[in-house]
Amino acid sequence: MAKQHDIDKIRKSSAVFVIFGATGDLSKKRIFPALFKLFKNKLLPEKFKVLACARTKFSSEQFRSYLFENIVIKEKDGFDNFGKIVDYLSLDVAKDINLSHLTKAIDIFENEIETCPQRIFYMAVSPSILKDSFENFGKNNLHIGCTKHMNKPRVIIEKPFGSDLKSAQELNLILRKYFNDDQIYRIDHYLGKETVQNIFAFRFANEIFEPVWNNKYIDHVQITTAEYIGVEKRGEFYDRTGALRDIVQNHLLQLLSLITMEQPQNFRAQSINEKKLEIIKSIKKLSGDETQNSTVRGQYEGYLREEKINPKSQTESYALIKLAIENERWQGVPFYLRTGKKLTGKVTSIIIQFKEKGHKLFENFWESPLPNHITIQIQPNEGIGIRLAAKKPGLESSLEPVDMEFCYKTSFDTPQPEAYERLLLDVILADQSLFLSQEIVEESWKIIDPIENVWQVGKPKLATYKVGTWGPEEANDLIEKDGRKWLQPLLTICKI
Amino acid sequence: MAKQHDIDKIRKSSAVFVIFGATGDLSKKRIFPALFKLFKNKLLPEKFKVLACARTKFSSEQFRSYLFENIVIKEKDGFDNFGKIVDYLSLDVAKDINLSHLTKAIDIFENEIETCPQRIFYMAVSPSILKDSFENFGKNNLHIGCTKHMNKPRVIIEKPFGSDLKSAQELNLILRKYFNDDQIYRIDHYLGKETVQNIFAFRFANEIFEPVWNNKYIDHVQITTAEYIGVEKRGEFYDRTGALRDIVQNHLLQLLSLITMEQPQNFRAQSINEKKLEIIKSIKKLSGDETQNSTVRGQYEGYLREEKINPKSQTESYALIKLAIENERWQGVPFYLRTGKKLTGKVTSIIIQFKEKGHKLFENFWESPLPNHITIQIQPNEGIGIRLAAKKPGLESSLEPVDMEFCYKTSFDTPQPEAYERLLLDVILADQSLFLSQEIVEESWKIIDPIENVWQVGKPKLATYKVGTWGPEEANDLIEKDGRKWLQPLLTICKI
Repeated sequence: MAKQHDIDKIRKSSAVFVIFGATGDLSKKRIFPALFKLFKNKLLPEKFKVLACARTKFSSEQFRSYLFENIVIKEKDGFDNFGKIVDYLSLDVAKDINLSHLTKAIDIFENEIETCPQRIFYMAVSPSILKDSFENFGKNNLHIGCTKHMNKPRVIIEKPFGSDLKSAQELNLILRKYFNDDQIYRIDHYLGKETVQNIFAFRFANEIFEPVWNNKYIDHVQITTAEYIGVEKRGEFYDRTGALRDIVQNHLLQLLSLITMEQPQNFRAQSINEKKLEIIKSIKKLSGDETQNSTVRGQYEGYLREEKINPKSQTESYALIKLAIENERWQGVPFYLRTGKKLTGKVTSIIIQFKEKGHKLFENFWESPLPNHITIQIQPNEGIGIRLAAKKPGLESSLEPVDMEFCYKTSFDTPQPEAYERLLLDVILADQSLFLSQEIVEESWKIIDPIENVWQVGKPKLATYKVGTWGPEEANDLIEKDGRKWLQPLLTICKI
Repeated sequence: MAKQHDIDKIRKSSAVFVIFGATGDLSKKRIFPALFKLFKNKLLPEKFKVLACARTKFSSEQFRSYLFENIVIKEKDGFDNFGKIVDYLSLDVAKDINLSHLTKAIDIFENEIETCPQRIFYMAVSPSILKDSFENFGKNNLHIGCTKHMNKPRVIIEKPFGSDLKSAQELNLILRKYFNDDQIYRIDHYLGKETVQNIFAFRFANEIFEPVWNNKYIDHVQITTAEYIGVEKRGEFYDRTGALRDIVQNHLLQLLSLITMEQPQNFRAQSINEKKLEIIKSIKKLSGDETQNSTVRGQYEGYLREEKINPKSQTESYALIKLAIENERWQGVPFYLRTGKKLTGKVTSIIIQFKEKGHKLFENFWESPLPNHITIQIQPNEGIGIRLAAKKPGLESSLEPVDMEFCYKTSFDTPQPEAYERLLLDVILADQSLFLSQEIVEESWKIIDPIENVWQVGKPKLATYKVGTWGPEEANDLIEKDGRKWLQPLLTICKI
């Protein structure tokens, strides 16, 4: 996480940024827009070169035109100047035995700036060709780094990191053949979001919440990522993957870990990842019976008619898992994690529900209990809300729930940077604090794999749900069985 | 504190409401407006008579015209109907040996409604004639109550309850000669304010605050009642009284007790007053040296030229006292209570400042400490705010203070009833929970008297302060000596 002197450091440094998969969706929607904005705000090294690589036969000139047309960003003003630092190379990083034109292009830039820039490789390619790509890296000595000072390149990869523990380990084995841990940047872009980072500030910079942040006061936690859209163009990938592996394994387990982890010693990657790993290891793995009772998988009506979906698919577009953390702080607090497509709306939020005050003082003054809850709204309309009981104005004495809220948009004039801007800057700064360690990835699969295995044999039964609802009825049954209910998270705070 | 079935109970009851001092300021500004609003909202007993008494020679008809002209209320619609329940009697309650025309007027109403109404006497007269008035009550057997059922009258008195412990005890001696404790209603109208009552809800109906409501987490508390106006027409009374006795002894000590008291068993007067008394008794009495070091008294520039002020007056228009509570929960937490006239603006608020998080996690991420605080804004713009540290949006990681807030006006459509409406209703309901017990009054004087005595001999020196400031420089010195500073409370929350 950068500070002003880091920005100065960046400006004085130099880097060559190689993007494989430069014509793909991620490049157009996320990577290039982030680079362009960083460039415009003078947050990139003064000596900076982008080498865009993909299979399409483009000249650099043609690629720049293509990028200008296709980059997903509102304000394209100043793109000409940005274009000057972008060159294009047509190549297949997985299959081309000889990548010498890439090596050469890097060498040319190094000679031109008369120094040894940081090499950064962004693997914006299909996970299926990652292994071959890294083997090819090795054959072409791309992993070695700058020939003069031998400073090692950094490599950025995107989730999914494998599709289960075994494949994640296999991928890592290849990666580690050529790179050390401190060269590998595993992106979960949720971690680059402002509100997610603000969880650290909220929890650890404020005196008043940590004392109640435990099983003595917290009843349960609901973490929701709801999507309004369906599978859209991602049918092929999605039908192979499903909601559990697409969202729960990474985003939701990450949010869970941020909300429950112990305080790290400092903000460096090692401390943060150590505490994260600790909490993820404390999550109880579900047995077969528990999977049956503590999970729901669902598919929206019409899923089977979507593009590139197997018409007999049993893949879930909705997943709910109830987890427990086996440590002193969280013993007895259930965590309900759910995600789904084609739900009522788009929202990602964490709701911490506190226990009811168990005393008689107010018993004649309200009809139904009014436990406190804290809502951390990650997207959209980022903010934090506290649900309180307050005296309803008037001559009668009765209590009503009210929300105190802090909304990013109204509290700060400053625009929020996109997650990728921050993450790319962190790669340049060699700051891994917002990136995942391999151990965390593996421990997350250890939670997901046993559930996936039971789901594969049809337990529990795949439920269906209507488009535009909050998911299958079975999800209500599950939480109501526990004497609780869903706190529908759709913009309860920061509505404007 | 009323509930719906109480309202039904009131409607079915009957009462005769006698106001002594019916032509005075309090009657015009508070009592009649409250009665009128209760009448319009059908919250008074169906059988209800107001007997307005004062020395002026008015017929009932003349008084109704006078009242219509002078009642301080915006909406006078419907006053005619209200006027029908108001009769006027010209009398001097302190001096008239024979009050038989009052007794007779009550008898006539009792015969008319053929039942025995609750008798309520409101003493809206100068404190100086209270003693004589009560003796006169006795002589005229007004304290005995309805002749048929002998149900006892209730009597309402207003602060100041004496001007020190001795005079408060003397007043009570007379009162107790004719009335039992459960017949005496001592009004501190602050306790009728919505936000003040909401302190109960905030503290005791919410799970998340009580765990941090103690000396482990709270650094100190600032309670402020700032007035924008000067002494205005109250010069004669004010110059005899001063800020310490006018505001601190009652309003501020009451706010202090509500914020610090232990949870009562229930909402009945006995339980609440028991816990209040307990906490007020725990306040450490200041020695002479402590008074010198822990208090500030000030007078605004120009005070001596105000109407009916002794040109050599040493009376304070500003008072600051720093108190300590000697119990387990509050040991070591200073409470700064201050009030003043002709300050920057009008506000009454309680600010609970929490301790700084004492760890190194964030030490490179902010320049100055950002401790949490909770603001309870009593008036104007009633609300509750929590000051948090949040991550400032942007690529740099730095923290900024933000306010979460809950504002009465924006959270509720319902208008807030005036304090007097609630309090008068509570008298009719025989609910003493928002009224002061004699013990509380006396214990409050035991805190104030020693300070007043030291002040009388000129210690500390009377400071002066400029109109429109936050008071004398000495007030800053006092808190800064403790390594703290004033959190200027002028509408930090609920600005709109």
